[in-house]
Amino acid sequence: MAKREFSSARSSAPVEAGEDGQFVWTRKDLLGLDELSERQIVHILDTAESFKEVSTRSIKKVPALRGKVVGLLFFEDSTRTRMSFELAASRMSADTILFTSKGSSVAKGETTLDTVRNIEAMGVDIFVIRHGQSGAPHVIARKVKSSIVNAGDGSHEHPTQGLLDIFTIRQRLGRVKGLKAAIVGDIAHSRVARSNIIGLQKLGAEVVVVGPPTLVPPAIKEMGCSISHDLDEILPQVDVVNMLRIQFERFTGAGAAFPSMREYANMYGLNAARLKRCKKNILVMHPGPINRGLEITTEVADGPNSCILQQVTNGLAVRMAVLYLVSQAAEK
Amino acid sequence: MAKREFSSARSSAPVEAGEDGQFVWTRKDLLGLDELSERQIVHILDTAESFKEVSTRSIKKVPALRGKVVGLLFFEDSTRTRMSFELAASRMSADTILFTSKGSSVAKGETTLDTVRNIEAMGVDIFVIRHGQSGAPHVIARKVKSSIVNAGDGSHEHPTQGLLDIFTIRQRLGRVKGLKAAIVGDIAHSRVARSNIIGLQKLGAEVVVVGPPTLVPPAIKEMGCSISHDLDEILPQVDVVNMLRIQFERFTGAGAAFPSMREYANMYGLNAARLKRCKKNILVMHPGPINRGLEITTEVADGPNSCILQQVTNGLAVRMAVLYLVSQAAEK
Amino acid sequence: MAKREFSSARSSAPVEAGEDGQFVWTRKDLLGLDELSERQIVHILDTAESFKEVSTRSIKKVPALRGKVVGLLFFEDSTRTRMSFELAASRMSADTILFTSKGSSVAKGETTLDTVRNIEAMGVDIFVIRHGQSGAPHVIARKVKSSIVNAGDGSHEHPTQGLLDIFTIRQRLGRVKGLKAAIVGDIAHSRVARSNIIGLQKLGAEVVVVGPPTLVPPAIKEMGCSISHDLDEILPQVDVVNMLRIQFERFTGAGAAFPSMREYANMYGLNAARLKRCKKNILVMHPGPINRGLEITTEVADGPNSCILQQVTNGLAVRMAVLYLVSQAAEK
Repeated sequence: MAKREFSSARSSAPVEAGEDGQFVWTRKDLLGLDELSERQIVHILDTAESFKEVSTRSIKKVPALRGKVVGLLFFEDSTRTRMSFELAASRMSADTILFTSKGSSVAKGETTLDTVRNIEAMGVDIFVIRHGQSGAPHVIARKVKSSIVNAGDGSHEHPTQGLLDIFTIRQRLGRVKGLKAAIVGDIAHSRVARSNIIGLQKLGAEVVVVGPPTLVPPAIKEMGCSISHDLDEILPQVDVVNMLRIQFERFTGAGAAFPSMREYANMYGLNAARLKRCKKNILVMHPGPINRGLEITTEVADGPNSCILQQVTNGLAVRMAVLYLVSQAAEK
Repeated sequence: MAKREFSSARSSAPVEAGEDGQFVWTRKDLLGLDELSERQIVHILDTAESFKEVSTRSIKKVPALRGKVVGLLFFEDSTRTRMSFELAASRMSADTILFTSKGSSVAKGETTLDTVRNIEAMGVDIFVIRHGQSGAPHVIARKVKSSIVNAGDGSHEHPTQGLLDIFTIRQRLGRVKGLKAAIVGDIAHSRVARSNIIGLQKLGAEVVVVGPPTLVPPAIKEMGCSISHDLDEILPQVDVVNMLRIQFERFTGAGAAFPSMREYANMYGLNAARLKRCKKNILVMHPGPINRGLEITTEVADGPNSCILQQVTNGLAVRMAVLYLVSQAAEK
Repeated sequence: MAKREFSSARSSAPVEAGEDGQFVWTRKDLLGLDELSERQIVHILDTAESFKEVSTRSIKKVPALRGKVVGLLFFEDSTRTRMSFELAASRMSADTILFTSKGSSVAKGETTLDTVRNIEAMGVDIFVIRHGQSGAPHVIARKVKSSIVNAGDGSHEHPTQGLLDIFTIRQRLGRVKGLKAAIVGDIAHSRVARSNIIGLQKLGAEVVVVGPPTLVPPAIKEMGCSISHDLDEILPQVDVVNMLRIQFERFTGAGAAFPSMREYANMYGLNAARLKRCKKNILVMHPGPINRGLEITTEVADGPNSCILQQVTNGLAVRMAVLYLVSQAAEK
């Protein structure tokens, strides 16, 4: 995949120093971690830090986006990501409007771009877009004035998931630089994996991807990470292990990626026995929803090394930060 | 059904006297009328009374739950109950977020508890849960910190429906104690019947359940009510008659509970002729949606003894009261 | 169609002069342009003009309907119209509640009127109703106290679409009186066509409807417009051309209205060649969603004569005005 292909044309000078020498965010879109510098990523994390406090208040509400409209455009289903963005928006007093492709004019032959332009004409300020096609949010971002936040495009990127994962690592382990992280599972089809690999490397961490050869394409090396097919060999070396969700459809039919779920769990599942051979403070992550007993056992998922629910909580803060930053840039 | 099985472990001391000797609500959950004392039920009704006035204002809005998030979790469809809770929440300035099990990660094999815990991690304060399994909200309430309000669980309880029915009786007839109420129809499968029986009895009313033997299980006597299969015999004795909705699926197939809908209407439907033989001020109730001409005729449903639409209106006030009370208890 | 059949009984004296001699809006419902006078239509357009400014502010929000509840009742799917009304309502600080007929008690045999009455009993102030049956909103308006806004009923009227089209014509061409407008396509089944014909004529414009004989019923002449089957003959004469969306189902099966889509596009599609033969400032309209290359080419749809996205933007302002006016009338 050509890196340039997806970049937003209008964000040519995304970082500028403000008059007082401070960092100024100037990107109206968040399309991927691919296009962000280390400094930009850190700026989002720091902004999220300040929003995190809002969620601990008795009245969890700030007026930051009052009178703005956030359009949630889900051309692909995603209950959790939709809810997280929706709550992030309303926590900042924005109005939200939901569009899903079911039963809508998408079915009637309208192009995606026409759909977005029409909803933009209704006065939507920020679009949060989930789309089955890699690069769809990038194409849209070049054609509309509103801000575009990529909520997952095909097998390309899921930048807010990458950011919330990195935010959680920084929170739990105090830093990202110098850490070694393993990402385990269906690397080939995972936008979560891609955004994590890109973001972690930009912040100075080392990434190894782990999984069966059918789910780990050799070309992933070009992203700068190493590859392993042996989880047991890798686990003792890493500070973070991110267990991807296994899609059941990979285990059925003629083109199945693996003989059986049981065998997968044996070879690539994280369980208590394996955890014992890890560093004591290893951080266990999962983007959810988890398949208990498949890629992760209940004991590990609910154990002290796990930060799965913290990831969800941090997702709110990260998404508040992203919505806020792109909205501020759009006003300039 | 064992009573203890469903009770919320953390609500061991649900009623306390405040410093000034006043009644203090300390339950973070509302799971069923089963677990409430007479005094607690009356306290909800009295609180609802004070919220009822809000809905008559030109600006129907109070800031009672501003900055709180109410998660509406409907694992089973229910348009009306969802709308009533949603309006109750927004009337108190809460943010709401809707989760339905269609097209969501429920289909992907995630457990109900993981779903709820994940949404809780997004900062939801109160969950309103409708679930097909009896006891599901009770299990969840023991595992999460957020407040749980049962919006109907299997054939177990539908406490806010019971409360709004009792609220309406008190409003229309001035009292509950000493009244005699008939509940007519599919008692076996009705959580509305159960919550009514429990609540009415706790407040000193007498309940008789009426219906064909196939829909009225003898074991219901253990709840303290009497059983009749003859509506005409019972009607002249009662102050309140609550006509349950008939489910069409009970009339079809090999295991049909009754030969035909027409025959059911003849034996257990409420019509003008039957109403003439009732007490003059008999209160006619129905949880809706009504099947006109089946369990109730249009003449009766829209007549002066009917309080069907008042029940709906009172539902808002009762749900506002419940959301408010559990939220206050959770803050302590 | 008998005109009186659909009129709202309670709106017998819809226009009155206020104490200071100013125009006072007294209609609690907006059912169709059919029942409005020229002065009433102009009053809605003028009110929309003042609301249009709100959408250009940084904080796009006014408290005009704070504490009011707008119920969006879509018995027929319509993503765009639903979103436009929802955004219009929240821009005026109203709470909204959505009801769609899927998976709801409609499927359980409840009458439409019972559904509406029940939701009204929850405290809804204004209903926005889309219904497949012509006249359904009119029947409902006679039976409930809440305001009813018709968001499209069968093949009868879609008054806010008509109003936003006329608003856009007035904005772009400076006037409506004396203009000549062509409406092209499936006139027989189009509520958009009907509301445009009625509204444009009331404001002094001349309307010609254009399309194949199978889609243009001769009886349409009774509405006061002329008929043509030759788009090329008509185009040079008109100031406005409104291209209706073609429904794919009209081209398939035994009762197909036209031999093929390609042939339809050749005869009745608007393309660059045809546009050259039009008046220089001809205004090109389309209610959306557009079928690019069928009833309109991309070049024309995105060209300088097109006002398609402006129509969408104006839709918000018009709907804000309508919700505001009916709400004010209901308070009296």
